[in-house]
Amino acid sequence: MDSPSDGPSPETARALASVRVVLHAPRHPGNIGAAARAMKTMGLADLRLVRPERYPDPEAERRASGARDLLAAARVCDDLEAAVADCRTVAAIAARPRDLAPPSLSPREIAPRLLADAASGPVALVFGGETNGLSRAEVGRCDWLVRIPTDAVYGSLNLAAAVQVLCYEMRLAALAASVAPSPASIAEPRAAHAEVVRLLEEARGVLQEAGFLDPARPGRLAERLERLARRAAIEPGEMAILRGAIAAVRVRMANGREKVD
Amino acid sequence: MDSPSDGPSPETARALASVRVVLHAPRHPGNIGAAARAMKTMGLADLRLVRPERYPDPEAERRASGARDLLAAARVCDDLEAAVADCRTVAAIAARPRDLAPPSLSPREIAPRLLADAASGPVALVFGGETNGLSRAEVGRCDWLVRIPTDAVYGSLNLAAAVQVLCYEMRLAALAASVAPSPASIAEPRAAHAEVVRLLEEARGVLQEAGFLDPARPGRLAERLERLARRAAIEPGEMAILRGAIAAVRVRMANGREKVD
Repeated sequence: MDSPSDGPSPETARALASVRVVLHAPRHPGNIGAAARAMKTMGLADLRLVRPERYPDPEAERRASGARDLLAAARVCDDLEAAVADCRTVAAIAARPRDLAPPSLSPREIAPRLLADAASGPVALVFGGETNGLSRAEVGRCDWLVRIPTDAVYGSLNLAAAVQVLCYEMRLAALAASVAPSPASIAEPRAAHAEVVRLLEEARGVLQEAGFLDPARPGRLAERLERLARRAAIEPGEMAILRGAIAAVRVRMANGREKVD
Repeated sequence: MDSPSDGPSPETARALASVRVVLHAPRHPGNIGAAARAMKTMGLADLRLVRPERYPDPEAERRASGARDLLAAARVCDDLEAAVADCRTVAAIAARPRDLAPPSLSPREIAPRLLADAASGPVALVFGGETNGLSRAEVGRCDWLVRIPTDAVYGSLNLAAAVQVLCYEMRLAALAASVAPSPASIAEPRAAHAEVVRLLEEARGVLQEAGFLDPARPGRLAERLERLARRAAIEPGEMAILRGAIAAVRVRMANGREKVD
């Protein structure tokens, strides 16, 4: 299993290849190329770039080395939501702990879960840019927060190095899954990321109409609801129930109970 | 253990800091700097360079980022033997299997052994240069051969990326060896079981009033909502929000929107 020639099973290799890496606002083209190389050496293939500062760029090509094909296939997106809209599970890699963040896992803990989810649809690992990382709101929209264990004095990994660590853990999870099928692989599929965004929009609408959410002073209510919804890992059938329930409540609120009864 | 602030115990941290990284004939100064950064983020500190092609070099400084102190303290050696002469255990990292090579281990397997050996004297991880790697003779002089599991089609890790993977495994081994249970392993508190039961009762009440749930033909709606709520692991603060939101919706449904607005 530790030998490079013993690869994952074909099914697991396909799941691994469908794990998406999203670089959010990367500044240095060298890091984009190095991230592509890190991915390819571990069997990942789907790279998306959200508003890269300089791309395409010869430095990205140079650092990609034998992974130029993967780099050439990378898709550039306008925002994070566009990069992960179709994903079942989205994990944000962040250096610092966050207030109201999604539940936190280590790279070793997230890898088998993400791989199991990848069997039923796209999943994503999201990396913030070199200078500012991901905002609290961006992290809040993800299902998991992944923190690489680092030294207390100096914990600033290079962006491509962080990609390498996560892709390495994904590959080890794929090799382990190919040996013994994990019980996690029978998990129910999740609703797509964009569907959760829409559900939360509708829920906010109801709460506003009910006077529970004041749009002038929203506080952190929306953020807290998003964190809860992400953690709940809502299944497609549950999503239909929740949206139907919200629609029914809205109609009843608009009409008033007495008029209909 | 997955939290960057929970470090290894002082004894283990000392052992980790004494694990030496040896770069044998590195060609690109950028990789030397990036290797220093990879080491420092994981708590390693002892870097040796055997016949570097260009060193010192501003590109090494730049890529070292916050690990310039570690880079400045790096010792340059004339040959591999000089770099590892005082070491108890020496592990060579190699991409390819070798004829007559020492026993082969994965990074995950070598890390705890090397760390244990580091308690009684220096140990070393030896990385070959970018173009030619280590010769058979050089590998043959080491105690272990370490092979990073890579993709069968493209397995060529960048030198600094390989250093990052090994240093990451060393840090995880150090954290595992430091037996103190981490506060991060304690999950967020959940709302009490009975509170979830009460929340679901209230939610069913709203859905009934909205005409979404027919008490005469309930189907499995309540069951499905309970399953979702249990999986969500609702925290006490979130419970307060959800119950407040349901109460507000109920009041508004009873009064009708027009009457209050």
